[in-house]
Amino acid sequence: MPTSPQAVVADLTEDALLDRILPLLAIGGSERVGPGDDAAVLELGGSAVLTTDSMVRDIDWRDDWSTPEDVAVKVVVQNLADLAAMGAVPRSLLLSLVVDRHTPVEWVVRFAGQFGQQCRRYAVSASGGDLSSAPAQTRVVSVTAVGTLEGAPVLRSGARPGDRVAVTGSLGRSAVGLALLTEASRDGVEVSGLPAEALAHHLRPSCPLSQGPIAAAAGASAMLDISDGLLRDAGRIARASQVAIALDSAALAPDLNWAERWVSRAVARAAVLGGGEEHSLLACFPPSVEVPSWWRVIGQVRSGVGLLVDDRPTPVAGWDHFAGREVHPSP
Amino acid sequence: MPTSPQAVVADLTEDALLDRILPLLAIGGSERVGPGDDAAVLELGGSAVLTTDSMVRDIDWRDDWSTPEDVAVKVVVQNLADLAAMGAVPRSLLLSLVVDRHTPVEWVVRFAGQFGQQCRRYAVSASGGDLSSAPAQTRVVSVTAVGTLEGAPVLRSGARPGDRVAVTGSLGRSAVGLALLTEASRDGVEVSGLPAEALAHHLRPSCPLSQGPIAAAAGASAMLDISDGLLRDAGRIARASQVAIALDSAALAPDLNWAERWVSRAVARAAVLGGGEEHSLLACFPPSVEVPSWWRVIGQVRSGVGLLVDDRPTPVAGWDHFAGREVHPSP
Repeated sequence: MPTSPQAVVADLTEDALLDRILPLLAIGGSERVGPGDDAAVLELGGSAVLTTDSMVRDIDWRDDWSTPEDVAVKVVVQNLADLAAMGAVPRSLLLSLVVDRHTPVEWVVRFAGQFGQQCRRYAVSASGGDLSSAPAQTRVVSVTAVGTLEGAPVLRSGARPGDRVAVTGSLGRSAVGLALLTEASRDGVEVSGLPAEALAHHLRPSCPLSQGPIAAAAGASAMLDISDGLLRDAGRIARASQVAIALDSAALAPDLNWAERWVSRAVARAAVLGGGEEHSLLACFPPSVEVPSWWRVIGQVRSGVGLLVDDRPTPVAGWDHFAGREVHPSP
Repeated sequence: MPTSPQAVVADLTEDALLDRILPLLAIGGSERVGPGDDAAVLELGGSAVLTTDSMVRDIDWRDDWSTPEDVAVKVVVQNLADLAAMGAVPRSLLLSLVVDRHTPVEWVVRFAGQFGQQCRRYAVSASGGDLSSAPAQTRVVSVTAVGTLEGAPVLRSGARPGDRVAVTGSLGRSAVGLALLTEASRDGVEVSGLPAEALAHHLRPSCPLSQGPIAAAAGASAMLDISDGLLRDAGRIARASQVAIALDSAALAPDLNWAERWVSRAVARAAVLGGGEEHSLLACFPPSVEVPSWWRVIGQVRSGVGLLVDDRPTPVAGWDHFAGREVHPSP
């Protein structure tokens, strides 16, 4: 049953809303049983890899910046990046959608449509979900991703002195987009006037997902996806592995050059070294193995514990979303 | 680091809050890798069964009625009940916690403590989670449950004429508790003065979880957990299986008698037939198999499609949480 573009969730029954959403999701594939029963049933084989991540409106996205399709892409990619960072292949997504009664049906339908497209793009199935109502203004999308792993998982704790540190994917692009959007919002500038290329990765991040299993098969000793910034995430590998990670800023020149097309040199450097939500993969490769194509070496693992940029010890800064301020843990 | 009882989430960094929560969760067990890396890794074997369910403050619970421990019990049980209703054994839970900066740390810590206790009680591991900040007043807990299945899943669509319809667990208890709480709230009566026995199942539901795999092994043809009321959920089996389900109200006498201790006869009947969030299991058993102990027969499956109570056709009513009203689909 078509609804008017002005229809809100309260205009439909839950069943009617589900009738609009379910055909949009990518149902079927590896499941024996998909949505519609109490739970989904999958034949996984191997090890199961599980992760969950939520996005909250007005914290993780703003409706005046992000379309429903943007939100769907972002929540899918950030979950699938966590699987890739273990070396896993994604198989299935579960979606929990929490929306208030006044949410436009069109928002939900557009979100679900893109969620389904993402599932098809990555060949995963939407194995289930939950639709809950919420108090006014609340909108939360929570995703759980399930993957499978053929060999051993690549942890954060396996880096050893002598390994090369390499990245695949971009650095700083999400942070540059966020910086431009924040500045435009402060100055009352229309978002539609901003350069699309500079915003693209912030609004719809991509992750080189297939490089996760490739790095694992190549013998990566440690890996994660860059969700809180290169320095903070490299620092996590250093701490977990009890090693020092030395980064070479010359290797970051392509990212710095791209960022300086849109923002000042200082903002560009902060974005490339500290920008979060990038979802590129950062991994360490032992001297005995070849760094796979599409990965570029940006540093080395040394003995000691800590983080160095161009041989200078660097404290690790990152954003803490509860404290609402930069936090500087001792190195 | 201890915090004062008045501390709110914004007083701690995210890492400090995680340091308080992680030791409380039941980590370890069947995982090869638990929380702390990008994703958890489990050796499942057999088929994986997946489900997700969220609870939203002021929709699914009220802080003046439910303690943080009550919320933890409820969100765990409603997820595990969905696994049991497929015949699966629970293995793992993932938790996504979305809370605003002014949330008392004590609320989060008490919730996490009981979440961990529930994991230990049901021998499942907490395999991961996500902590997100939210706009003022928002509090959402989303859980994904993972189970395993040795044989075939028990679906809603397998009931056949001649099967007996049976239930294990209580009926109407959650709705009676909700009715008393709602009445007390309307009349300005203190909740602490209400009889604890009448509120217990609403605040901390229980599900006879082990009966799910037992019914599956016994040969149940269809099964679900009663989350939206006996009539509505029996109607779901009838529609999915294309059969008629005939319930015998005399078999519901123990539930009606219990309910009438606390509420009027009319409210008691509505609670037993239509009350949701009960999480008891409803299953159909073919004539060739024995109904297991702890299950009681409350009706029969007949040819046709629909629902009958004492041989009278009954429209299926249920609560629709978006429309905020009773909905009466055509039978």
